[in-house]
Amino acid sequence: MLGSGVHVGVFDRAFADSRQSPDGAYFAQALDTIGYRGKLKAGTIKFRAMFELHIEQGPLLETEARTIGVVLGVQGMRWYDATVTGREGHSGSTPMKQRKDALVMASRLVLAVNEIAARHPQGFATVGSLHVVPNSRNVIPGSVQLSIDLRHSSDSELDAMERELATTTAKLATESQDIKLFEVWRNPAVAFDGACVGAVRRAAEAAGYSTLDLYSGAGHDAAYVARTVPTAMIFVSCLNGLSHNEAESATKGDCAAGAQTLLNAVFEYDRGLQQEC
Amino acid sequence: MLGSGVHVGVFDRAFADSRQSPDGAYFAQALDTIGYRGKLKAGTIKFRAMFELHIEQGPLLETEARTIGVVLGVQGMRWYDATVTGREGHSGSTPMKQRKDALVMASRLVLAVNEIAARHPQGFATVGSLHVVPNSRNVIPGSVQLSIDLRHSSDSELDAMERELATTTAKLATESQDIKLFEVWRNPAVAFDGACVGAVRRAAEAAGYSTLDLYSGAGHDAAYVARTVPTAMIFVSCLNGLSHNEAESATKGDCAAGAQTLLNAVFEYDRGLQQEC
Repeated sequence: MLGSGVHVGVFDRAFADSRQSPDGAYFAQALDTIGYRGKLKAGTIKFRAMFELHIEQGPLLETEARTIGVVLGVQGMRWYDATVTGREGHSGSTPMKQRKDALVMASRLVLAVNEIAARHPQGFATVGSLHVVPNSRNVIPGSVQLSIDLRHSSDSELDAMERELATTTAKLATESQDIKLFEVWRNPAVAFDGACVGAVRRAAEAAGYSTLDLYSGAGHDAAYVARTVPTAMIFVSCLNGLSHNEAESATKGDCAAGAQTLLNAVFEYDRGLQQEC
Repeated sequence: MLGSGVHVGVFDRAFADSRQSPDGAYFAQALDTIGYRGKLKAGTIKFRAMFELHIEQGPLLETEARTIGVVLGVQGMRWYDATVTGREGHSGSTPMKQRKDALVMASRLVLAVNEIAARHPQGFATVGSLHVVPNSRNVIPGSVQLSIDLRHSSDSELDAMERELATTTAKLATESQDIKLFEVWRNPAVAFDGACVGAVRRAAEAAGYSTLDLYSGAGHDAAYVARTVPTAMIFVSCLNGLSHNEAESATKGDCAAGAQTLLNAVFEYDRGLQQEC
């Protein structure tokens, strides 16, 4: 989303140029190396609308046995890091009542984060990464760092989830055991353009494909581009909902149905524009 | 405990020689490098008794404001590795109800392990290390590996704790989410020799030091040597119960009290032997 972010002005060029890969290479150098640095300033070419085709990266189309996902928007996302402090001690000589075990408190936080999503049926809450210090078999964990990922298609619901996270964190913490919460990133919910979404739905139906209305849980270029021009997305099914994973897989038939829907959607939308004129 | 283990025959020489440091050096080579390989076969010299002086590695002496710990024995220990399986998925598109989040299940296991110790007042239960795979902010954890450390001064109580761990694990696991438990190591509880323990207590009292009877939670050479000759241990206080840690600290006064108790204990025990003759 770096390219689309620069295109719409979320990031400036200098920010993009200075991104580094894990091995230290700068994005600007990498563009030159592969000959992909264009001559036009980003954003020079104006588009009337944008349609993005993607795998779902989730299991809904597969579960519901539908072919085309009509994407209504992109969920809002809030990312946090949490640090739980405790006190290291020997696992065989520190009485249970005197312990300040950071992993026990972190485990309560993981379950509490999960329960936040249970109270918001359309929401998602995930602790994806967790690091224990010192992470040794016979040492009571002295601190734990973990990530929290909250998502919802409604920003106000997301506000509520965020408040519950703050309340839960404050409740779990004790005088001697602290939980610190840092916001890492946030992205507002995006509702795609009604005319574009309608074009996608009619496009799929015209080709005889079954459809399912859904929200994207992942970030996409379309979420940024939607800030400047009418935008929508089309999803096709992927095996077991897997993505960013070597087992990611989509059938040729689904990819073809996606491409056909994309083509039809552009024609549909164009027809609408001509009727306006 | 490798040296004392070879001394009493828990390990053979070949096992000790073939231990490797993280950088790949063998124990046998390292002994030669520093000139510490002796000429006598381990165990050749016979001892009449053994007294070992050590920091407590726990907070009891400090909490109770006593100077000398009279160590009654070493707790039994059982170490396990647990593997919790789940299914990776995107954090923003996998509905909460369809998830198999290995970290959520692992968190329940961490809390359950903690509760086992709560039901056995003299017991200890610790999850010290935990690894999440793939450990990425926006991926639902697909598997978690964690360590479990159970200790008690009574082997039969430890048996009960082990049964509760098996029951809890079976209860938490579901048809689609497995928890596998592997035993890594076990060491039986050790009760030190009554005459040696008595000599330590009288030795401390003779020098005017306050005492506290306790069990060692950590493993010690004395636990192995106790298999062959009468053995006991003396503990002195350490700051905040910390050990295996750069902040480990014991006062000169406590160290001197420990040394005085050790000397007195040898005399005490020797006096007892002479009365026997």
